[in-house]
Amino acid sequence: MIGGGQGAFIGAVHRIAARIDDEYELVCGAFSGDPEKSRASGLSLGLPSNRVYNSYAELIEKEKQLPESERVQVISIVTPNHVHFAPSKMALENGFHVILDKPMTFSLAEAKELDKVVKATGKLFCLTHTYTGYPMVKEAKQLIKAGKLGEIRKIYVEYPQGWLSTFLEGEHQKQASWRTDPGKSGIAGAMGDIGTHAFNLAEYVSGLEVTQICADINIVVKGRKLDDDGAALLKFNNGASGVLTATQIAAGEENNVKIRVYGEKGGLEWHQSDANSLTVMYTDKPAEIWRTGGSYTSSFASHNTRTPAGHPEGYLEAFANLYRNFALTINAGIDGKEPEKEWLDYPGIEEGVRGMAFIENVIASGKSDKKWTEFKI
Amino acid sequence: MIGGGQGAFIGAVHRIAARIDDEYELVCGAFSGDPEKSRASGLSLGLPSNRVYNSYAELIEKEKQLPESERVQVISIVTPNHVHFAPSKMALENGFHVILDKPMTFSLAEAKELDKVVKATGKLFCLTHTYTGYPMVKEAKQLIKAGKLGEIRKIYVEYPQGWLSTFLEGEHQKQASWRTDPGKSGIAGAMGDIGTHAFNLAEYVSGLEVTQICADINIVVKGRKLDDDGAALLKFNNGASGVLTATQIAAGEENNVKIRVYGEKGGLEWHQSDANSLTVMYTDKPAEIWRTGGSYTSSFASHNTRTPAGHPEGYLEAFANLYRNFALTINAGIDGKEPEKEWLDYPGIEEGVRGMAFIENVIASGKSDKKWTEFKI
Amino acid sequence: MIGGGQGAFIGAVHRIAARIDDEYELVCGAFSGDPEKSRASGLSLGLPSNRVYNSYAELIEKEKQLPESERVQVISIVTPNHVHFAPSKMALENGFHVILDKPMTFSLAEAKELDKVVKATGKLFCLTHTYTGYPMVKEAKQLIKAGKLGEIRKIYVEYPQGWLSTFLEGEHQKQASWRTDPGKSGIAGAMGDIGTHAFNLAEYVSGLEVTQICADINIVVKGRKLDDDGAALLKFNNGASGVLTATQIAAGEENNVKIRVYGEKGGLEWHQSDANSLTVMYTDKPAEIWRTGGSYTSSFASHNTRTPAGHPEGYLEAFANLYRNFALTINAGIDGKEPEKEWLDYPGIEEGVRGMAFIENVIASGKSDKKWTEFKI
Amino acid sequence: MIGGGQGAFIGAVHRIAARIDDEYELVCGAFSGDPEKSRASGLSLGLPSNRVYNSYAELIEKEKQLPESERVQVISIVTPNHVHFAPSKMALENGFHVILDKPMTFSLAEAKELDKVVKATGKLFCLTHTYTGYPMVKEAKQLIKAGKLGEIRKIYVEYPQGWLSTFLEGEHQKQASWRTDPGKSGIAGAMGDIGTHAFNLAEYVSGLEVTQICADINIVVKGRKLDDDGAALLKFNNGASGVLTATQIAAGEENNVKIRVYGEKGGLEWHQSDANSLTVMYTDKPAEIWRTGGSYTSSFASHNTRTPAGHPEGYLEAFANLYRNFALTINAGIDGKEPEKEWLDYPGIEEGVRGMAFIENVIASGKSDKKWTEFKI
Repeated sequence: MIGGGQGAFIGAVHRIAARIDDEYELVCGAFSGDPEKSRASGLSLGLPSNRVYNSYAELIEKEKQLPESERVQVISIVTPNHVHFAPSKMALENGFHVILDKPMTFSLAEAKELDKVVKATGKLFCLTHTYTGYPMVKEAKQLIKAGKLGEIRKIYVEYPQGWLSTFLEGEHQKQASWRTDPGKSGIAGAMGDIGTHAFNLAEYVSGLEVTQICADINIVVKGRKLDDDGAALLKFNNGASGVLTATQIAAGEENNVKIRVYGEKGGLEWHQSDANSLTVMYTDKPAEIWRTGGSYTSSFASHNTRTPAGHPEGYLEAFANLYRNFALTINAGIDGKEPEKEWLDYPGIEEGVRGMAFIENVIASGKSDKKWTEFKI
Repeated sequence: MIGGGQGAFIGAVHRIAARIDDEYELVCGAFSGDPEKSRASGLSLGLPSNRVYNSYAELIEKEKQLPESERVQVISIVTPNHVHFAPSKMALENGFHVILDKPMTFSLAEAKELDKVVKATGKLFCLTHTYTGYPMVKEAKQLIKAGKLGEIRKIYVEYPQGWLSTFLEGEHQKQASWRTDPGKSGIAGAMGDIGTHAFNLAEYVSGLEVTQICADINIVVKGRKLDDDGAALLKFNNGASGVLTATQIAAGEENNVKIRVYGEKGGLEWHQSDANSLTVMYTDKPAEIWRTGGSYTSSFASHNTRTPAGHPEGYLEAFANLYRNFALTINAGIDGKEPEKEWLDYPGIEEGVRGMAFIENVIASGKSDKKWTEFKI
Repeated sequence: MIGGGQGAFIGAVHRIAARIDDEYELVCGAFSGDPEKSRASGLSLGLPSNRVYNSYAELIEKEKQLPESERVQVISIVTPNHVHFAPSKMALENGFHVILDKPMTFSLAEAKELDKVVKATGKLFCLTHTYTGYPMVKEAKQLIKAGKLGEIRKIYVEYPQGWLSTFLEGEHQKQASWRTDPGKSGIAGAMGDIGTHAFNLAEYVSGLEVTQICADINIVVKGRKLDDDGAALLKFNNGASGVLTATQIAAGEENNVKIRVYGEKGGLEWHQSDANSLTVMYTDKPAEIWRTGGSYTSSFASHNTRTPAGHPEGYLEAFANLYRNFALTINAGIDGKEPEKEWLDYPGIEEGVRGMAFIENVIASGKSDKKWTEFKI
Repeated sequence: MIGGGQGAFIGAVHRIAARIDDEYELVCGAFSGDPEKSRASGLSLGLPSNRVYNSYAELIEKEKQLPESERVQVISIVTPNHVHFAPSKMALENGFHVILDKPMTFSLAEAKELDKVVKATGKLFCLTHTYTGYPMVKEAKQLIKAGKLGEIRKIYVEYPQGWLSTFLEGEHQKQASWRTDPGKSGIAGAMGDIGTHAFNLAEYVSGLEVTQICADINIVVKGRKLDDDGAALLKFNNGASGVLTATQIAAGEENNVKIRVYGEKGGLEWHQSDANSLTVMYTDKPAEIWRTGGSYTSSFASHNTRTPAGHPEGYLEAFANLYRNFALTINAGIDGKEPEKEWLDYPGIEEGVRGMAFIENVIASGKSDKKWTEFKI
């Protein structure tokens, strides 16, 4: 693991996700740019001293020198955005599979470069868009793919948070500080941190691609340097339209990311606060509540479910599904087998490139006087 | 009553709303442009033959000639949009108070003209934006007015319907036919029919005014002549931003109009499918569920409540609240008393003018290549 | 109307319910045992002085002497329980149809006597068990009747209130005072006031009859004279079992009466706080949300619905459905026509007798050391 | 681990729960009474061959002979009920801490015997009543303990399942087979499997103890040998009353275990289908929704929370909380420190004895003609 030292948030989440299905073992780490902190973090995680490194470069170099049976196979990179590209590139080029936290890179240029590296090295790459790991999000995608709603016409996706309603970075809160710092986060704040999740969710569930964006991007809290609020009108490649909102100043909101998709014959709705339910509605019959663990769900949902219906699976299990499917795919490669289609259903480099393109396009649109900005990569 | 004959929808709703609190008695009507139909409708409603008229003009003229103690005091106009202005103007100018269904007129020009008539005649005027009649919508307004959320920053308002997902007007369904006919409905379809409700709700609850609009207006169903879907980015006069969506092609949706408002200190959410609850959320303490009939609610909510908490009041009661408050205000005038502030809390001519301006501005924005359209009246 | 004068609660509800569908006109009343108060109430309701009476006996006698075209046809009796039997009997025996608030009488003996009167006079009789007026409660009954759930096995019905959590009758609150007074309410408090609603709902929806009761009846608030809390295990005539709870000391609860019924193939749930939804669940497919106004609902639901789906109908509309169906049935009789089966679907004398039997049996069981008490009438 | 081999359900859950917080490492197991199956299970879990045993006795004996630094410290026993007592006793007496699945033993006599063993050996013991691991269940307990609801008056607890609506044991479904077999499950079916959870939840949250039971116990599905449905009226040691229901034939229900507790000043409600919310309601102010991760929650809730509010934690995390607190307590002992009060908040031997007493008393009551059965241990 690179990043995720003491005081970090998402690193611990990655470690739990990796443990849940027992497909991973934490064997080494460079947990901080500060060698002291990296060391302290590694030891507290029970790693032997010689597998805790002072920097990601040292980790990659030294691990590479270990015998294949000992050295790390997959490197999780859970640093702030400005330290995504370089360690990912180096890891891939030195023969390691990579799991990377979103958004993929600091810029679209880096993303396109990383895309080339992934393709050139042939190593596997997973980007942790957690919400696509939920069984009922997968079910939503499958229902749409199977034509249950008919041609898609309208998509609403939203990610409301309230935690940045005040100038939290002024209080040196660690999470707030780097996420609102253009030097660490990139050109976008809310749009990069959670807007990309909403964007990814919309494209994943619908199977469509955004082609045009018209965005209103705001810095609401005085003194903040990056957007903490935004909304975008969207056009999709089949002619459907949509609305995406992402905000960190919706005071009182937690993390209730939500998607609604409507087609000719019906619609569906999923939101994280009731993550194990998927509402499927029709014009001519009662709406249905599809449930995680239901005997009638697709293989994509059931493969990603651990407990009987009614025993809620949550965010960590969704996260673990990404880790597990990535491991199953890696292992299939090792065993020379074809991975199952359910295993391959994890976000990767393409989603990452599109996510970074979303960031650049949505911010460009926010600055533009023109209504529509073409979605360019 | 003018309009609302057999086969009509909203006329019957108006009549129930008028009856609920026993402040009105139906004494006469011109229920259709077709005299036969008007007559049949009136008789089936139990009116004496001589108080059923062949046209609205006849109604106004003949009623005016009756002794004051006999003649109608308030005229409800529940016709399609293109027959709103003329009867309203004539009724007001002949000394009658008017209740008019929304949207107020066929065009903004008519609306501004009607505004002058209302002011010139001094008669009272009520526009039936039903959703502002709900006790918990009123409570939301009062909480914001009292500063409970701090300065408002973000407003999301939405009105999703699915009933026009197919080309229903091709099947000569009465409601679909006139609502999608530019000759009867005006320049807008969904934006006029339900977008105006959403717009009114946003301004009513927040106490703010829209200043800029950036809209995406769509005709989704093939062959349709007016918009059946749209979304608009909004700017408000205090610097807040918002998103308004209104659609009639969200297949499976009923009428779950919904508003969320966020300020510096907290947010609130109301939606019609749980109309007797208002969620008020905070950054630092548990969210609260305010309820119709709660002992802690404001006079604006309690004045508009009939039954103890937990016995749900619905759409008809919300509608009746408009009727009742209008009647109380009229009666105060008759009695030479000052109406209570709770009675005056019904939508009127100003809301009507702003609603028509919304229609014209949102449609203009939809056609514009420029991102922001100034909200002009 | 008999009862329902100033300060009363349920009388006003009856009057609104009667007005909503315009099938009734209030023409006379004896609104209180106190002639002064009756007079003041009647005048404030707009009645002419000569149709406001000093007592129910005077009302019945004087109205009977009026010409048939003028005199009242239906008498609503909305007094406390101890003044239910005598005016009902007298009204029926003098040729009037009767609408009576629940519970039907002061005692089971009175109920059985009233049953004889109804049968002897042939007049129509309606008992206002409001909750059976909800469209989705009617749908629940129809679904079960049609065998959608298979043979019924389990019924949970509950009526939780919190308003009597304190010794409110000590503060001379009018509603609390008579409802906790054995001289006015009868032998039961909570079990009579709301337990009978729960009991009626269970038998109505399931189509089954209770045969055995095992009850725990409590007086929780110190100083109270009648039960304010209770729970009962039930056996039904097909072998199904159930649980009924009714309490007035569930602090914080409003009036969320709720029923769940399970059969061999599935179950259903309805509760008043989401009155327009009916959840129907299955062992092998997604649960469905049936909705008031849905195009797929039975004639029993659609006949009792006024507005399109998504515009919530509430408690007053449910109450109005009883009034409307009773009026339609009366009018069919006047017109010499067979009433539709949907019109006849209102609670009557049989439900009243069973409700009074429930009260006596449940209280007897509460006092018994034996587990099961046979349900006797 | 003892039990939990291939085809088992709860063993895998225990293993995930143990891994989530990285406080445990699986080092050995006797996964089945069938040595072949035990071996296959152990190897597939990645254990070395010499740490997979043929029987629990062999496991305990052989592990005991290993040097302290190598041998297992805590033994999880996840077998069917009839194989709970003997391995627990042997493990404790040989110096191992024990985690045991519920219900604790086959009979109350065994439970009392095990109680003595725990006390005599001084080893630590955890019983996996999962639902008490949820942060919002812990919050409910703390709110009541702090007097927020006043003196408790009424408790409703229910555990509805539908999975045994058919004669599943006739199809040789593994879970159904042993759970309905008196030789493996004990004298109770539903009451033992899920009734004990409901009972434990009621006592845990309220801090009260059941003193009297009046139960209706049923075998609904033809051919079944143990109860699949039941309901019980309860009396608590402070005079409060309650209702407990547990059923496996509520067709369509999943696992929505639910508790409601009411006191003099307010009430609260928690149910597993919305596990991260706790509704706290009052007689005189809006109900509050307390949430997992809320900044205002007690140390008991926050200590048991891993992710920010709005990222749902589910059943596995609740289960992991038991494991983690047990580990923290064990480690405190090793380190010679006093465990924090939050760590000690896991169910143990006392809850187990009371649970077994519940089973014997509730079944006895079900067979009795007397209304109330004293709760005896």
